[in-house]
Amino acid sequence: MTSIDAALLNRFAAIVGEPHALRAEADIAPHLRELRGLWAGRTPLVLKPGSVGEVSRILKLATETRTPIVPQGGNTGLVGGQVPHATGDEIVVSLSRLNRVREIDTLSNTVTAEAGVVLEALHRAVEAVDRMFPLSLASQGSCQLGGNLSSNAGGTAVLAYGNTRELCLGVEVVLPTGEVFDDLRKLKKDNTGYDLKNLFVGAEGTLGIITAAVLKIFSKPRGREVGWAGVSSPEAALALFGLASGLAGSNLTAFELIGKAPLDFSLRFTGNAIPPLAGDWPWHVLMEISSGRSPEDARGLIETILSEGSEKGFAGDAAIAESIGQANAFWALRENISDAQKPQGASIKHDISIPIASVPEFIARAAVAVESVSPGARVVCFGHMGDGNLHYNVSQPVGMEPSAFLALYRPMNKAVHDIVRDLGGSISAEHGIGQLKRDELLATAPPVGIDLMRRVKAAFDPAGIMNPGKVL
Amino acid sequence: MTSIDAALLNRFAAIVGEPHALRAEADIAPHLRELRGLWAGRTPLVLKPGSVGEVSRILKLATETRTPIVPQGGNTGLVGGQVPHATGDEIVVSLSRLNRVREIDTLSNTVTAEAGVVLEALHRAVEAVDRMFPLSLASQGSCQLGGNLSSNAGGTAVLAYGNTRELCLGVEVVLPTGEVFDDLRKLKKDNTGYDLKNLFVGAEGTLGIITAAVLKIFSKPRGREVGWAGVSSPEAALALFGLASGLAGSNLTAFELIGKAPLDFSLRFTGNAIPPLAGDWPWHVLMEISSGRSPEDARGLIETILSEGSEKGFAGDAAIAESIGQANAFWALRENISDAQKPQGASIKHDISIPIASVPEFIARAAVAVESVSPGARVVCFGHMGDGNLHYNVSQPVGMEPSAFLALYRPMNKAVHDIVRDLGGSISAEHGIGQLKRDELLATAPPVGIDLMRRVKAAFDPAGIMNPGKVL
Repeated sequence: MTSIDAALLNRFAAIVGEPHALRAEADIAPHLRELRGLWAGRTPLVLKPGSVGEVSRILKLATETRTPIVPQGGNTGLVGGQVPHATGDEIVVSLSRLNRVREIDTLSNTVTAEAGVVLEALHRAVEAVDRMFPLSLASQGSCQLGGNLSSNAGGTAVLAYGNTRELCLGVEVVLPTGEVFDDLRKLKKDNTGYDLKNLFVGAEGTLGIITAAVLKIFSKPRGREVGWAGVSSPEAALALFGLASGLAGSNLTAFELIGKAPLDFSLRFTGNAIPPLAGDWPWHVLMEISSGRSPEDARGLIETILSEGSEKGFAGDAAIAESIGQANAFWALRENISDAQKPQGASIKHDISIPIASVPEFIARAAVAVESVSPGARVVCFGHMGDGNLHYNVSQPVGMEPSAFLALYRPMNKAVHDIVRDLGGSISAEHGIGQLKRDELLATAPPVGIDLMRRVKAAFDPAGIMNPGKVL
Repeated sequence: MTSIDAALLNRFAAIVGEPHALRAEADIAPHLRELRGLWAGRTPLVLKPGSVGEVSRILKLATETRTPIVPQGGNTGLVGGQVPHATGDEIVVSLSRLNRVREIDTLSNTVTAEAGVVLEALHRAVEAVDRMFPLSLASQGSCQLGGNLSSNAGGTAVLAYGNTRELCLGVEVVLPTGEVFDDLRKLKKDNTGYDLKNLFVGAEGTLGIITAAVLKIFSKPRGREVGWAGVSSPEAALALFGLASGLAGSNLTAFELIGKAPLDFSLRFTGNAIPPLAGDWPWHVLMEISSGRSPEDARGLIETILSEGSEKGFAGDAAIAESIGQANAFWALRENISDAQKPQGASIKHDISIPIASVPEFIARAAVAVESVSPGARVVCFGHMGDGNLHYNVSQPVGMEPSAFLALYRPMNKAVHDIVRDLGGSISAEHGIGQLKRDELLATAPPVGIDLMRRVKAAFDPAGIMNPGKVL
């Protein structure tokens, strides 16, 4: 089953101690398969180091013996970046035991935490000192900070607070040689040489293992309001976004676009759900306003946006959540879309971004492309409009054989991604490259960029042990 | 005078055409000396390419012939990064003719502009379409975008909008080989491989030449208010900052700390200046609030901050500018500090950052260190407190011989920077490394980080032609 010899496995296991070196099939199993079951890898050994020093000794030995390493956090990634290949010649290093929140500094507004801290645990630790960490993902109950950093996770709060990259001030990284790059700085300004931090963030564990990071935290908002608006077209949604962001700046903490199909699916899926609006609209906007000043301030601001939006003809019907329960219900309609798609049969999904100005054109052209690949397929378009990031999912035509629809995976991807590329967009806005999009990236990205990435990879990991076959 | 032979110089000159290949001493002179006169280099040739293609041909020839290249923008850098060495064997490439604003997209809120665009011209172009580009520097009338990007320029608006790095969405870079890396994307989210953009931003022209960039632009604020507060200590200023940023979020567009000495110097220097406050305070805060909503909203917010700050004992006296003229007068007191220091004799300056929480400790410890190096020296401490970035300048003791004070340059630097390093700070928050801080960086930065930077440099510029002897 494995091409790593037993003596070498024992040397690796000795670094972390036998209780933290998983070899039994049942212990290893949860580390081999990602959530959607698209990849199932194999490994003879999962190591769970308990200190940065142990991570260092693992990577040093791996480089010396040319043993490939797959770093893993909460195993919630969606592109197969965190699972080993089926060859069985890679060792998985789980960072889950490095789960200490090392320090919270409420004056500098920073938290220093280790890679294995679960995102939700980080939220709680920060809330306990009256601050908030804005990164928010569907998987936050199990995803870990190291994975968030390595995949530059996005989520719903990017509009106001940025991606994980923008939330990160400093990193601690174990390099493939075992050297520790300690750059755990709390600084907002530091112009002392090349920006190495941003190379490791988003590298999907191919350049080293991030063991800890300094992250920005923020004052908790004193007021929050959630609104829902029906709009007649993506163009109207775009105009409403321009109005809202101009008025609210970073008080606009979410601006989500939702098509009629995903809303219908979500309403059907969510028990006892009441449609937010009485009227029937082809497109919907979920917006959230947060205020550091007061609840009244947040309320006044969202009312101004919706009434100006209505006067100018951008927004049709609109509703403001009148309770926390209703606000949560609005959000649930958005968050349940993925699950609500499942009863609709097979789906083909795209995680794309385009310049915000091009969102309407993309939506129009992609609808034609989808119909030409699979007549009757149902477009489930929703996402973070304020970031130009759409989850452009396609559900199979009603009554079609799911396997027949899934056979169209590649032509459907190509049809949608060709439009994305034509508009200067990205084929992976949030989820990364991993195994899923590696071939497509290499085939379609500008060769100069790929060559530069390969030079970085060779310079940082000359032995090629870090998560091989992912990204590049 | 030069070690580059005449035939080779002619080959370089032929690329841009003789009118744009400066060889006469008088034509070359402005490109050799930086503003403060600390470095005076030599070169046989200044090239002014008129297109990206010409930049590409220059670098290709330079790599083939191992000819060192010094890229130059508006020549306003403060660390000698943009001037050639005295050896005379380098060719200066001025980007000033690449000065086109290629596109402004008011829906995506982006501007695409070339490296030679003067910052103030970029401001005007963006204002003409009712937007604003927040990067604001003392040198904005002559500094160029390429230099801003290559030095990751800071300035007074970083608090709300970030450094130049955070304002940049995409770059176009000519690599040392002459290849063009076209990454001019308008995307806020793009997780397709390593973050190459951030390697070029802040690299001070040592990895390639940035020829154009996509930058974020913003809605113009509808209201702006400038306030001045006297505070009893840096601790009180820090508490006031926490209060202000909690209430205002990114509506807090400036929070500048000013010591008594720099304020006194500035008042003396600025003709007819009226002190903003009647009382006598050891420390002062200049704050600015911007609102996308209305002038009344900005006014209400700054009043809330100052009254809550006063109730809590953080702020003493406070004043809000009652006119644009008075707001400008407040800002002038801040902006004139550097010039106001000149009549006070010789000065030794530091551009440092520290974690915000450590600002008071730094100020206390540095005062002791300065006094021990030069008894009677006057600390001129001011800067962007909200970013933890202080311009920690020291004016000579009254009556001392300037040259005797300047002889203390190295021990003074060391005394101040040792405290910075001890507090996890940066010895170059805004201005970069260039020639000025290269030796200190190499001597004091963690060797692992320096080694990684050298690997990047070798991978991107194997011939070592890009701005040698700068940064690394």
